[in-house]
Amino acid sequence: MKVYAMVGIGKADWVEKPKPKCGPLDALVRPLVLAPCSSDTHTIKGVLGVLQDRGLGHEGTGIVDEVGELVKDFKPGDRVIIPAITPDWLSEEAQDGWQQHTHGMLGGYKFTTQKDGVFSEFIHINEADGNLAHLPEGVDPEVGAMLSDMTPTGFHGAELANVRFGDDVAVIGIGPVGLMAVQGAVLRGAGRIFAVGSRPNCVEIAKEFGATHIIDYHNGDIDKQILDLTDGKGVDRVILAGGNQETFTQSIKIMKPGGTLGNINYFDSLEPLKIPMLEWGMGMGHKDIRGGLMPGGRERMRRLANMVVAGRINPGRLVTHRYEGFDKIPEAVQVMSDKPKDLIKPVVICEW
Amino acid sequence: MKVYAMVGIGKADWVEKPKPKCGPLDALVRPLVLAPCSSDTHTIKGVLGVLQDRGLGHEGTGIVDEVGELVKDFKPGDRVIIPAITPDWLSEEAQDGWQQHTHGMLGGYKFTTQKDGVFSEFIHINEADGNLAHLPEGVDPEVGAMLSDMTPTGFHGAELANVRFGDDVAVIGIGPVGLMAVQGAVLRGAGRIFAVGSRPNCVEIAKEFGATHIIDYHNGDIDKQILDLTDGKGVDRVILAGGNQETFTQSIKIMKPGGTLGNINYFDSLEPLKIPMLEWGMGMGHKDIRGGLMPGGRERMRRLANMVVAGRINPGRLVTHRYEGFDKIPEAVQVMSDKPKDLIKPVVICEW
Amino acid sequence: MKVYAMVGIGKADWVEKPKPKCGPLDALVRPLVLAPCSSDTHTIKGVLGVLQDRGLGHEGTGIVDEVGELVKDFKPGDRVIIPAITPDWLSEEAQDGWQQHTHGMLGGYKFTTQKDGVFSEFIHINEADGNLAHLPEGVDPEVGAMLSDMTPTGFHGAELANVRFGDDVAVIGIGPVGLMAVQGAVLRGAGRIFAVGSRPNCVEIAKEFGATHIIDYHNGDIDKQILDLTDGKGVDRVILAGGNQETFTQSIKIMKPGGTLGNINYFDSLEPLKIPMLEWGMGMGHKDIRGGLMPGGRERMRRLANMVVAGRINPGRLVTHRYEGFDKIPEAVQVMSDKPKDLIKPVVICEW
Amino acid sequence: MKVYAMVGIGKADWVEKPKPKCGPLDALVRPLVLAPCSSDTHTIKGVLGVLQDRGLGHEGTGIVDEVGELVKDFKPGDRVIIPAITPDWLSEEAQDGWQQHTHGMLGGYKFTTQKDGVFSEFIHINEADGNLAHLPEGVDPEVGAMLSDMTPTGFHGAELANVRFGDDVAVIGIGPVGLMAVQGAVLRGAGRIFAVGSRPNCVEIAKEFGATHIIDYHNGDIDKQILDLTDGKGVDRVILAGGNQETFTQSIKIMKPGGTLGNINYFDSLEPLKIPMLEWGMGMGHKDIRGGLMPGGRERMRRLANMVVAGRINPGRLVTHRYEGFDKIPEAVQVMSDKPKDLIKPVVICEW
Repeated sequence: MKVYAMVGIGKADWVEKPKPKCGPLDALVRPLVLAPCSSDTHTIKGVLGVLQDRGLGHEGTGIVDEVGELVKDFKPGDRVIIPAITPDWLSEEAQDGWQQHTHGMLGGYKFTTQKDGVFSEFIHINEADGNLAHLPEGVDPEVGAMLSDMTPTGFHGAELANVRFGDDVAVIGIGPVGLMAVQGAVLRGAGRIFAVGSRPNCVEIAKEFGATHIIDYHNGDIDKQILDLTDGKGVDRVILAGGNQETFTQSIKIMKPGGTLGNINYFDSLEPLKIPMLEWGMGMGHKDIRGGLMPGGRERMRRLANMVVAGRINPGRLVTHRYEGFDKIPEAVQVMSDKPKDLIKPVVICEW
Repeated sequence: MKVYAMVGIGKADWVEKPKPKCGPLDALVRPLVLAPCSSDTHTIKGVLGVLQDRGLGHEGTGIVDEVGELVKDFKPGDRVIIPAITPDWLSEEAQDGWQQHTHGMLGGYKFTTQKDGVFSEFIHINEADGNLAHLPEGVDPEVGAMLSDMTPTGFHGAELANVRFGDDVAVIGIGPVGLMAVQGAVLRGAGRIFAVGSRPNCVEIAKEFGATHIIDYHNGDIDKQILDLTDGKGVDRVILAGGNQETFTQSIKIMKPGGTLGNINYFDSLEPLKIPMLEWGMGMGHKDIRGGLMPGGRERMRRLANMVVAGRINPGRLVTHRYEGFDKIPEAVQVMSDKPKDLIKPVVICEW
Repeated sequence: MKVYAMVGIGKADWVEKPKPKCGPLDALVRPLVLAPCSSDTHTIKGVLGVLQDRGLGHEGTGIVDEVGELVKDFKPGDRVIIPAITPDWLSEEAQDGWQQHTHGMLGGYKFTTQKDGVFSEFIHINEADGNLAHLPEGVDPEVGAMLSDMTPTGFHGAELANVRFGDDVAVIGIGPVGLMAVQGAVLRGAGRIFAVGSRPNCVEIAKEFGATHIIDYHNGDIDKQILDLTDGKGVDRVILAGGNQETFTQSIKIMKPGGTLGNINYFDSLEPLKIPMLEWGMGMGHKDIRGGLMPGGRERMRRLANMVVAGRINPGRLVTHRYEGFDKIPEAVQVMSDKPKDLIKPVVICEW
Repeated sequence: MKVYAMVGIGKADWVEKPKPKCGPLDALVRPLVLAPCSSDTHTIKGVLGVLQDRGLGHEGTGIVDEVGELVKDFKPGDRVIIPAITPDWLSEEAQDGWQQHTHGMLGGYKFTTQKDGVFSEFIHINEADGNLAHLPEGVDPEVGAMLSDMTPTGFHGAELANVRFGDDVAVIGIGPVGLMAVQGAVLRGAGRIFAVGSRPNCVEIAKEFGATHIIDYHNGDIDKQILDLTDGKGVDRVILAGGNQETFTQSIKIMKPGGTLGNINYFDSLEPLKIPMLEWGMGMGHKDIRGGLMPGGRERMRRLANMVVAGRINPGRLVTHRYEGFDKIPEAVQVMSDKPKDLIKPVVICEW
């Protein structure tokens, strides 16, 4: 079968591989809609080292092709959402509430890091009963693909930041994840939302999703802008969905005592994050710092799909570029890497 | 000054009283917009016994007329939101998180039960710095009056029920409080919302606020209808904003294990609520039963007003009947008692 | 193999059965120490109907005899703790935090209700990696057997009641589960603990475990006694570990507004529980009512065993009667049924 | 009256001042037992700048001498516990749950920073009904003085770190606050406790309070020692009650994914705290970082005193040095500064 894989630092290409073995708890899924993520482009660049011939991709919907003998709730032909995170559900960590970190930190994240990703003719799903979700009737597989990673990651920002009724929230970074964080913050009861970004199409959707203020770094330091708009008090919560080490430090500065920072940004530098002491109350300021990988698995996908069905969210709004055919994956990955001005999220629509 | 008061079982009338004394922490407020509540009509009927000549009303906005010498954040002329619940903030209970129950159960509720209500030319506010909130510029005092009780009570239902991303929620009762519970549930991340009610104007707003299904008891038992719509599984959360003892029992039946019931209904019968054993898992089913008075005070009002300013909620949508002039209070109370078909919430717009 | 089973209403006896099949995720375990539970005696009496020839028992430690091909963390010869609750970890419910209710209410409870219990020469464990825990070196298998049900159920009472630093707590019922609830409450920070019971040996251990007051119903209504001791204010939390429908109603009466009731009592009557309205604030009193089956599984057992190793708890203190040999199970079950005055918990020590 | 005050960088001395005015909500209290804190010695050294003639001290018990006209629950002659933190209870921040930060970060901390501290013949208490607690009969005022700051700060560490049943916990620093953190961790259900420290008397009490392992930095890097003892997995929670910027970084390294750090250490350097990226999962590791000032006020003191009465804690165990007479304050402060080997906590017993 064909797999679109990393084949060297800065290089991705098609690789021919045998169809994966379907263990007793597993499923094999053929892709319906796939979506490249900016982390695929980072992987290609080498941030995880050389993963020779390892398949890329972790977002998509598909059709079940085969299931193991112990799988109860899925059968060939079922249309499914594939979560980016597919944990080991029998582990101590999952039982303790940390499905993302089963058998070690980030261990619930398997695509590309531990096995071939979803850019494959047959996608291997471990513990299928726990890691697939039925795509509800009437939900476009393209919208479903936005539930694999973009939506749960953005929403996890709102969860980590623990947004409450009437909170002022800063969402820093309004790429696809940040945009979903805006929507997640609204759906946890945010008052004002200060969205930090400048690309016109992102700004437009940020407003549509509920941002009340757009903060553009071209107009000055974002921390100063936000402090000005809040009479020097700062915001209750920050969702960090972009930026770098310096942005982190600014995030601490713009929070009220009692505030919470929810980081969903994967930092690509090993430079330590710095907590500014005065603004952190010399250790006494009650500004919580949290950050973590999205929860995946079946129930999470089911809940998000339920929100789509109920009309609460429309993550399909993120899709700006569509490519027809499984063999167009390289083009979609390329556009993700090129980041043209009008790009938010590309998808590949597979036909079989 | 004139106070509209209970003057006997089933009787309310104007009473002449001296202007209240303004203690060092207190404020006197003149009403801008007042709103009768169905609980005012219950009080008149005698559910609290005879509160002879006690002023009615606990919802409204006003203009500060006088403040005590220790009041720091309000001054005459300030436009303010008056919360229905005005706790004693120095009490142990408030420090323990139970502002509603300061100095005894429901002790934070003072209007009518402990002193004259807001249907008065001069409204007495205890601990003004803790119990008034500034009406933000641009917010209509009529909308502000919906923040005194309707909005925080409805939202408290969503809080008690602990609505999470993708939860299916039943909101039982869609009078003004239930309608705000629908909006509150959406703004905590609800998936489907099953709203129980039948009056056309309420149904219309329930849908507008986010109900996905309307359950009409004229079409059969509401528990059976909801169980049918959820494949026999039931909902994750129930917000009980109306009904009687039997409705409570039905609420337990329609909940999944792990579900939570948030009651915001003031029951007017002393008949015990009955928990059905099979559906409560003989005590083992993890169906939490919660119920309580809304939190009030300044910070709560500030947060809700912040949501109005941010465009998240529009509780002004509840107002169906408007009366011009403080002396129209009796008519507004009467319409609340008569409950014509097109009534949701009446307001009295005072002019000075 | 021999299984001690229900063989009719009021009757239990040895039954010969084939050794269970060990599926790919499963394990077979030979018993080390077994403990009858009062619920075994209820089962024999017929509260679950006739479970013809169904093996009894759900508490014990053992030695792994065989494991399925997908089991990773256990191997023959391992000494293990068997939790009373052995959920389906790939289910939506487990992912949602309700391992007790996988595939339906109480579905995580499998021994006796869904398959043979632990009173068997070979005990079948579903999803062994998720449902067994290693017995730490140095922990007596007898003590380990008290971690199957008595300790996690008692501790769940303290969790459900959400005991906080300095809370006054009533623990109603001081059989083995109630005693562990006392210890659980202390280890969540309880202030005073009012333990309701009268049997001398239970009273002695209750005090040893941290009860500050013993309430004996022979001295009058327990609600009045507790209200008197708390100046009429009541307690912050109630853990209901015994009693009947009337006791439940009393529990509501002795709670402060803002209080929480954690029920861990399996009621054996279908008579509805009654919530008294005045004391529940007519629905407004913020007295949470919670109740549920203990969480089991591997991680829970590991944590409790960690507390034994650290010297925090000594549930072995509950064991009053010891029977040597697997064939003594009937005697141990009989003593549980007879409940002699000096009984708290019997164990059967198996030798192979 | 006499006040023991800062009179220059590195200098403290008696200062004569007028008796403070007792406002309507206030109380004046005469000291019974006072305790210097290491932060008093830091203040003298100048970490807060020059607070010329500002009275020192924030821990103690006393006798009410005078109360304002609005004070309801205290009267002259009452024996009271004085919390180190005495918030403004009518503020928005207190209503939002952040009593420590009323009217600005750390604003609830008033002694020495905003007004004279407790080393004074008449101690001024703002909002006395909210900020004093009755010393229960039978509780030694010396023990009560350990409830002002040492106990609530140590316990706040366990709260911030959110210790749960069976968690492995590292408590870094076992001065008086760290020792109370050990006890607090036990009373939240800790499994193993790794206490980092080396002074023999502290080590002895740490073990007595529940530490299972003592980690001495003389034996190598503390992070390596703790990782070794936990098979490289690390602990569930860290309470940081001492150390410096480097210790903070080590704390992140020794935590499991899903872990929580509760900092109660007031850092005295402006050097930023550094979060190591690999161990923080590049932002994805779910290692929460929390830190904050203890909650004070009346209810907190009441709860802690309830735990003393119930025999759960004995913070009096910390007292190693006793000075008889109010005029011995300078000696007690000096011993705090000198830190002789056998010192944990000195007290001054005042006689009037």
